[in-house]
Amino acid sequence: MGRDRQGTGAARHLRGAPRRGRRTQGTRRDRSSAGPGGRARHHGLGCPGDERLRRGRARSLASGDEGLARQDRLRRSRGHPPGGAHRWAGGGHLFQAPHPGPCLLGRARGEVPVKGPLLREGFRVRSYDARPDASLRIDRLCDYLQEAAGRHAQAMGLSMERLMREGYAWVLERLHLEIDGLPRAGEEVVVETWPAGAERLFAHRDFLLLRDGQVLARARSRWLVLSLERRRAVRLPDFVRGHPVAERPRAIGGPYARLAEPTWTSREQLRTVRPSDLDPVGHVNNVAYVRWILDALAAGAEPAVPAALDVAFRAEARGGDTVCVRVQEGTPANHAVAHHAVAHHAIHRPSDGRTLLLAATRHRPS
Amino acid sequence: MGRDRQGTGAARHLRGAPRRGRRTQGTRRDRSSAGPGGRARHHGLGCPGDERLRRGRARSLASGDEGLARQDRLRRSRGHPPGGAHRWAGGGHLFQAPHPGPCLLGRARGEVPVKGPLLREGFRVRSYDARPDASLRIDRLCDYLQEAAGRHAQAMGLSMERLMREGYAWVLERLHLEIDGLPRAGEEVVVETWPAGAERLFAHRDFLLLRDGQVLARARSRWLVLSLERRRAVRLPDFVRGHPVAERPRAIGGPYARLAEPTWTSREQLRTVRPSDLDPVGHVNNVAYVRWILDALAAGAEPAVPAALDVAFRAEARGGDTVCVRVQEGTPANHAVAHHAVAHHAIHRPSDGRTLLLAATRHRPS
Repeated sequence: MGRDRQGTGAARHLRGAPRRGRRTQGTRRDRSSAGPGGRARHHGLGCPGDERLRRGRARSLASGDEGLARQDRLRRSRGHPPGGAHRWAGGGHLFQAPHPGPCLLGRARGEVPVKGPLLREGFRVRSYDARPDASLRIDRLCDYLQEAAGRHAQAMGLSMERLMREGYAWVLERLHLEIDGLPRAGEEVVVETWPAGAERLFAHRDFLLLRDGQVLARARSRWLVLSLERRRAVRLPDFVRGHPVAERPRAIGGPYARLAEPTWTSREQLRTVRPSDLDPVGHVNNVAYVRWILDALAAGAEPAVPAALDVAFRAEARGGDTVCVRVQEGTPANHAVAHHAVAHHAIHRPSDGRTLLLAATRHRPS
Repeated sequence: MGRDRQGTGAARHLRGAPRRGRRTQGTRRDRSSAGPGGRARHHGLGCPGDERLRRGRARSLASGDEGLARQDRLRRSRGHPPGGAHRWAGGGHLFQAPHPGPCLLGRARGEVPVKGPLLREGFRVRSYDARPDASLRIDRLCDYLQEAAGRHAQAMGLSMERLMREGYAWVLERLHLEIDGLPRAGEEVVVETWPAGAERLFAHRDFLLLRDGQVLARARSRWLVLSLERRRAVRLPDFVRGHPVAERPRAIGGPYARLAEPTWTSREQLRTVRPSDLDPVGHVNNVAYVRWILDALAAGAEPAVPAALDVAFRAEARGGDTVCVRVQEGTPANHAVAHHAVAHHAIHRPSDGRTLLLAATRHRPS
């Protein structure tokens, strides 16, 4: 218990970044090991030490066509039709919205047998989880995913508590949602989640949201393991890499898109971090950032409902911080256009100029 | 559907107050009829027309001793020991924390048969409902209560939708919680709720929060019915009064305490109403106000955990409003003392000076 406490305290002030992180998504994938999950943390990627990582990632993502071709080959080798990945361009950035093979979209539950670890967690959509039109709020959906990930990580012996006993902590680095439909208040839904592979630094976890066996939304996430002692991301420990992954297609295929700072500002909001924004381990909850993005995005009084959301967590805000939430919509000539196809988001902390988060949202043409 | 929409739109701008409201709690109680519940609304009590109501209520509450004596007589007539009600004085205001009879506190589930309508709604405490110490957050507890009330009102044919079809809307006017303990993340709890009586203007609904059959928290609430056409609270319609109430002791006995404006300000915070603060019908959710109070109360980074909370809802905030949340703690000489026994709260809207809410919280001596 004493070590746990110490670990929690240390983790609050964690800064730093991986130093030997040239192998990112798009390089060698080791699908035979590791399972991510656990509670969400943020992690600073802003110090000079991670410049090489960023250059490496930029290179691997610059070759986006190669990534898509590789993804197609992979899909064909599994018997899926090629060309499942579409691109959505906006503001000069790539925001991919690939579609899964037919075995994931619209399938009946249990139709595809899954080998390896998988968790199914049921939720009843409560009225307090719903928007004015009674559909599930996106931030609450993220709550559901995080809850399922935490329970699965615990069941696999990879809970945050276990990692902290070993001197580590889980850090959510990326979350990407593709939303085809949303359940309504009073309905029962199931979140399926599974560990989806591991690289040197990253553990992958995927999600499906199902209602009556039909897929409503898909998500993928990427997690780092932080050394509490060295205060930076480290190579995944063997006890993490040693866990099996589920043998099923990724919920969302293809490489992650490159997210960049908004190049103009359509709207910005200052927010103060409140105690109610903090998660069970005392950090700003990842879902709070999602709520801030959607609050800033909403043109009217109602929460915004994007069809896709892709968030890169870069550093954490602390209780009492003032943060600036920026949105870039439309075009440089007409950036007052609300609900343009793609919007870009950034959250900064004005006191030190640090970028806490970059994100993109995609909206259905109205 | 068309009428519903219209009703919702009209309700957003509802103002006004009951005109013939001299019979308040402490006057004649009709326990043979009416069932409150449904979604939460706010209601303006600030216009000149309700001055008589406030005077009437002040008179009935000024005779607090009579109220307590009457409560004792009632308890004795039901076979409960007298003297269950204690008072907590702070800042010159009365904040009563009565204890229930032995049949409610610490009883096993099902021990006391209940006649009349009662709803039991189960909840699993999710990690996103929890504080850093893993105990249930108070604002999430209020979410649970509101969810149970809404489901019960619907089951009784008194849902917000039904009322709106008849040209009315439910308005939560008062919520009082007494908290003996809180469940932890991962635990299963049950909320029991029942209609607890009706007066001319008010419908009462009570709640228990149970874990393994043991009572952890008790709550009572008071609801008004608003006429959408006349834009003010009206005498409870016959179809509301005609419903039976549960024959069980009140979860919290005695008259409601008088809540007054803080007489000094220990701390104040400005907040902007965000889309995520709005409830399914597009108003600021009652629970959002509770969250704002607890955020302003928290001395450190962690959400505050009062042992009791008593909130009087007076008028509603709208999306985009800036509101000022004030806390009065300690004494006039030393009001920096955090977590003094009783704190008093008010939420105002600076743009028109309107008082949206008054509240008191009680804390266990640390």
